[in-house]
Amino acid sequence: MLSFENDYSEGAHPRLLQALVDTNFVQQVGYGEDEYSLRAKVRIRAACQDPEADVFFLVGGTQTNAVVIDGLLSGTEGVVAASTGHVNVHEAGAIEYTGHKVLTVPEKDGKIDAEDLRALLSGFYADPTHSHMVYPGAVYISHPTEYGSLYSLAELTQLRDVCRAYGIPLFLDGARLGYGLESYETDVTLPDIARLCDAFYIGGTKVGALCGEAVVFPRHGAPKRFITHIKQHGAMVAKGRLIGVQFDALFTDGLYFDISRHAIDMAEKMKRALAALGVEFFRPSPTNQQFVILENAALNRLKSQVRYSYWQPFDETRSVVRFATSWATREEDVDALIKKIRECM
Amino acid sequence: MLSFENDYSEGAHPRLLQALVDTNFVQQVGYGEDEYSLRAKVRIRAACQDPEADVFFLVGGTQTNAVVIDGLLSGTEGVVAASTGHVNVHEAGAIEYTGHKVLTVPEKDGKIDAEDLRALLSGFYADPTHSHMVYPGAVYISHPTEYGSLYSLAELTQLRDVCRAYGIPLFLDGARLGYGLESYETDVTLPDIARLCDAFYIGGTKVGALCGEAVVFPRHGAPKRFITHIKQHGAMVAKGRLIGVQFDALFTDGLYFDISRHAIDMAEKMKRALAALGVEFFRPSPTNQQFVILENAALNRLKSQVRYSYWQPFDETRSVVRFATSWATREEDVDALIKKIRECM
Amino acid sequence: MLSFENDYSEGAHPRLLQALVDTNFVQQVGYGEDEYSLRAKVRIRAACQDPEADVFFLVGGTQTNAVVIDGLLSGTEGVVAASTGHVNVHEAGAIEYTGHKVLTVPEKDGKIDAEDLRALLSGFYADPTHSHMVYPGAVYISHPTEYGSLYSLAELTQLRDVCRAYGIPLFLDGARLGYGLESYETDVTLPDIARLCDAFYIGGTKVGALCGEAVVFPRHGAPKRFITHIKQHGAMVAKGRLIGVQFDALFTDGLYFDISRHAIDMAEKMKRALAALGVEFFRPSPTNQQFVILENAALNRLKSQVRYSYWQPFDETRSVVRFATSWATREEDVDALIKKIRECM
Amino acid sequence: MLSFENDYSEGAHPRLLQALVDTNFVQQVGYGEDEYSLRAKVRIRAACQDPEADVFFLVGGTQTNAVVIDGLLSGTEGVVAASTGHVNVHEAGAIEYTGHKVLTVPEKDGKIDAEDLRALLSGFYADPTHSHMVYPGAVYISHPTEYGSLYSLAELTQLRDVCRAYGIPLFLDGARLGYGLESYETDVTLPDIARLCDAFYIGGTKVGALCGEAVVFPRHGAPKRFITHIKQHGAMVAKGRLIGVQFDALFTDGLYFDISRHAIDMAEKMKRALAALGVEFFRPSPTNQQFVILENAALNRLKSQVRYSYWQPFDETRSVVRFATSWATREEDVDALIKKIRECM
Repeated sequence: MLSFENDYSEGAHPRLLQALVDTNFVQQVGYGEDEYSLRAKVRIRAACQDPEADVFFLVGGTQTNAVVIDGLLSGTEGVVAASTGHVNVHEAGAIEYTGHKVLTVPEKDGKIDAEDLRALLSGFYADPTHSHMVYPGAVYISHPTEYGSLYSLAELTQLRDVCRAYGIPLFLDGARLGYGLESYETDVTLPDIARLCDAFYIGGTKVGALCGEAVVFPRHGAPKRFITHIKQHGAMVAKGRLIGVQFDALFTDGLYFDISRHAIDMAEKMKRALAALGVEFFRPSPTNQQFVILENAALNRLKSQVRYSYWQPFDETRSVVRFATSWATREEDVDALIKKIRECM
Repeated sequence: MLSFENDYSEGAHPRLLQALVDTNFVQQVGYGEDEYSLRAKVRIRAACQDPEADVFFLVGGTQTNAVVIDGLLSGTEGVVAASTGHVNVHEAGAIEYTGHKVLTVPEKDGKIDAEDLRALLSGFYADPTHSHMVYPGAVYISHPTEYGSLYSLAELTQLRDVCRAYGIPLFLDGARLGYGLESYETDVTLPDIARLCDAFYIGGTKVGALCGEAVVFPRHGAPKRFITHIKQHGAMVAKGRLIGVQFDALFTDGLYFDISRHAIDMAEKMKRALAALGVEFFRPSPTNQQFVILENAALNRLKSQVRYSYWQPFDETRSVVRFATSWATREEDVDALIKKIRECM
Repeated sequence: MLSFENDYSEGAHPRLLQALVDTNFVQQVGYGEDEYSLRAKVRIRAACQDPEADVFFLVGGTQTNAVVIDGLLSGTEGVVAASTGHVNVHEAGAIEYTGHKVLTVPEKDGKIDAEDLRALLSGFYADPTHSHMVYPGAVYISHPTEYGSLYSLAELTQLRDVCRAYGIPLFLDGARLGYGLESYETDVTLPDIARLCDAFYIGGTKVGALCGEAVVFPRHGAPKRFITHIKQHGAMVAKGRLIGVQFDALFTDGLYFDISRHAIDMAEKMKRALAALGVEFFRPSPTNQQFVILENAALNRLKSQVRYSYWQPFDETRSVVRFATSWATREEDVDALIKKIRECM
Repeated sequence: MLSFENDYSEGAHPRLLQALVDTNFVQQVGYGEDEYSLRAKVRIRAACQDPEADVFFLVGGTQTNAVVIDGLLSGTEGVVAASTGHVNVHEAGAIEYTGHKVLTVPEKDGKIDAEDLRALLSGFYADPTHSHMVYPGAVYISHPTEYGSLYSLAELTQLRDVCRAYGIPLFLDGARLGYGLESYETDVTLPDIARLCDAFYIGGTKVGALCGEAVVFPRHGAPKRFITHIKQHGAMVAKGRLIGVQFDALFTDGLYFDISRHAIDMAEKMKRALAALGVEFFRPSPTNQQFVILENAALNRLKSQVRYSYWQPFDETRSVVRFATSWATREEDVDALIKKIRECM
């Protein structure tokens, strides 16, 4: 069955698999000190244009968010996120499990507005009772967001400025970072992110790897004893090479960017075709996730032929669903999807 | 350079890699509901002779210990372990991070003695102040232990009996389980473990997989909402197929047992050759880790040619080091190791 | 200086102090097993008309909320609260520190609306991704609320019905319970609360005691090993008599209710006088906390003569402030307050 | 019935109660900012000869240990304690509940030996795997210890020196500090403790107060945002005056020291009388707790007439029990105790 359910339905890009095969019997030390991990770190620092960036490899997104946020915060602090932020909704309370509150601001197209952030921070310090409240200690944003939207360079700079004014770090969840960087509509580059954020991760799981996220702390910004912190959170991989080899391949010859661009090309094609069919979009998205409104009856017909993500009810007769492309999406499958939707409408 | 440093210096057994390649583009649902994970669970249940076992796949050992132990314990409880238990020493406080104390009993050859356990438990309940103390809520054992030793069937049965008498679960850390099951000196089988333990895991990372541990709760014994619990601990893998495919291969045609047996054969060969050289063993080990006492001067000469694990000082002039074999150890490398040791002594 | 800043500006009701003096040298066992604590529990059970209620004495409100909520929830669960709930705002993240998320519903006059609760719960279970979310595991309400408002018997019953339908406990924060029970406008009695809630506490600190809150779990509903749980949270008082003696006195001859009624009488007098002055109320409050809107200029003049609580800005020139009465408020001080406000307006 | 069960069987010293009565209706601000708390802090700073000491008032011992230790440690750190340390045994895992391991060294007369501490610390850093272990981040000692023993000034200085060499704070649990300072056999003063420790507390609960412990961080050494940290741990008392008034009284005219001296006088009298009866001491104790070995048959006769603390079995026919004096012990009761023991032997 055709699947546009998400961007992690296949395994890994063949070049990553081949690299795993090629290096399989070379003996390496464990825990991320293998030569492939070290080389991948060099490549990532270069791509970020930050030779002093600290880089770590973790396994998945929720883990990375919890490990990084808990590393950035002190005990009396919480993390600010949009109400729709992944850490606030779909991580089973992983942040709270580490003892920290998620402090929410209303989402604007899935994003945090710099003025809302400033209002929260200035309001906090103006409140005479704030010593009995959770201190805002870091800001979490996702880019692309959970709705596929993107921060502009100006928006990101404003957020950074507010964070800097209050002395708190800005952390960017880049689970789908490639799809953001290769969007037709972005003016944000990887070096921009490295320059403006205090921590971020380059998502591998959703962008061509079997697993793995590359956490970057620009300017030697890693929290103290971060290796021990990772171990304590059960996030240390004995065979660190598994992730190192993959990121080494992803950041060789621009593979990460190329395969991300492919997913965007496929999403744009899908978007144009859906628009041509008169399908209504729930929200505009310049990245690989497209949120559309379809009749429930049509969805009922569609669901035996295509896997998609059910998002939420829209009204009595219609629902919001998500179609996602990825590095692995084939153009003929996009064509087939459009054909099936047309038939079901 | 020759390496006998540990049992995770290579990637994966070729059949696992091949299975990853073969299935790479088959679209699958995420989070462990893919067909390979489901099939691997069926195979593991069969190997355990427990058709009702709940099986989950996690990434690594420390993560598994923390997730399982925190799942088994209620808030007022701690876990009993040998003082040398991995959870007590080398997991950076991952158990305490989940809020639970590790209650130690003295190690006997790396193991917990059933009578020591009984004494701890009966002493606890006899103590009139025990409501101000941490309740022993589960027992953690490793098999093989951190010293390569093994529980006999009688010892395991005695531990189970004590646990049952006090109504607490017995959890077995099987990071190297294959090497225990295939030891020349064991009388414990996988079905025995499934019958006697309330939770255990079958280690993949150290026995032929790139990553992955299969957690088994026999007799439908998984803690409530264990999926959410896994997610909360950041231990959920989006592409669950990565681990599912590997365990599917490991439990096809007895591969897990065959490759474990190979490691044991190599260890036994090494053991005999070392004994013939007059090398003194720190502790007897019937599994793939061999702990020997060597002159520091000899070790100094050896270290540029062979990677081994430094364990601890033995006396003024000698140290304890570990040589580990694995599924990947080549017989000619064992021969080379012995030759080099002989030359350095 | 006159103070209407809060309801904990004085020490204890003289009968409580006298009881402490009278019993001072009687030797007692510790940790709440003293005869005064036991007698106070009997009296509280009687006042609740629940002879099977489990009763525990803790020190303060935030502590009680954290200890009780953490006791009611399992690991994967969070607590539902109004967005204005004390646990969500003014407890420095004490709930999250125990590892649990506070799941908010919009406040309606400081309260949770039963339909909003039902919508949250039904929406949660209807969401196909809910196993990746925090389970709503208990409901927290305050009565009176942080805004002085009260649940009617009908509202409380509806909340109870929703909780029961979903099998989760209803917990009532009664830090100011006396002032709710003695409001001129309530139809809710202490036995009603014991009947409708699964856990609640009878506030002592704000209602006549030096410290102390009486936690009640009706119908033998205390979480398992609650004593150890209390100890683990650092909430066990060695000289439990300190709180026991006070609650014994508070629940002798209806003292708790009488002194609460006095605070209500004083608040109603203040309310009528303020209304007569044309002062605008921010929110209607039938209890001891009155929230009024005053000109900033008037407040500036007032603040050297009266202590009040600044609440929040209202508009450019006015602010919301709180005047609270208590068991200790003297009628002449209410008169003096009104006179001063009149002079400053 | 006569009680020598512990040092918290009575209420408070009459001067403390009187001070509570005298100040009862003076309106004060909450949360420890009242004038009595501020004055008590000044007195404590003077008694410590450290005008820059940060002082906070908490309620009880376990709470204080957890709040302070969690405040001193960073996430990857644990606290070193003697195996018999209160935090390791009788606090229901309160330290682990905050996420930190208790790292034990063998007790020597209830104390930590500076050489054992040095060995643990140097061994830790010498271990090549220490980044996978819990970092020793603070040292916890009790003075007097759980066995009534005391550190000499030389021992305390040595511990301080080791801590300083490794850059970790030394924390002294002074639940019974007065009884240590007034021992006939000590050469340690309160200013010595303030000089040598980085944090300590002056116990009130067991030395004349209804409740309360005064936490001292010499040399402005309080952890950042310690007020919020206290609130988050549920340890903030709304009517901070309750503890402030008591410590103000305790540190007026040397009351704390005088009443402690009385307890020591009573203990020494008891000790001499027991020795004269030929009673064997389990351990020598120069403070208010005396541990003796008695025949079980004698204890059986005694227990209907005297409350004591059962400690542990000694051999088949004898047990260790504790008799504790306190500020409240009457000399005639000591005489009566001795008489009863003589009769029962």
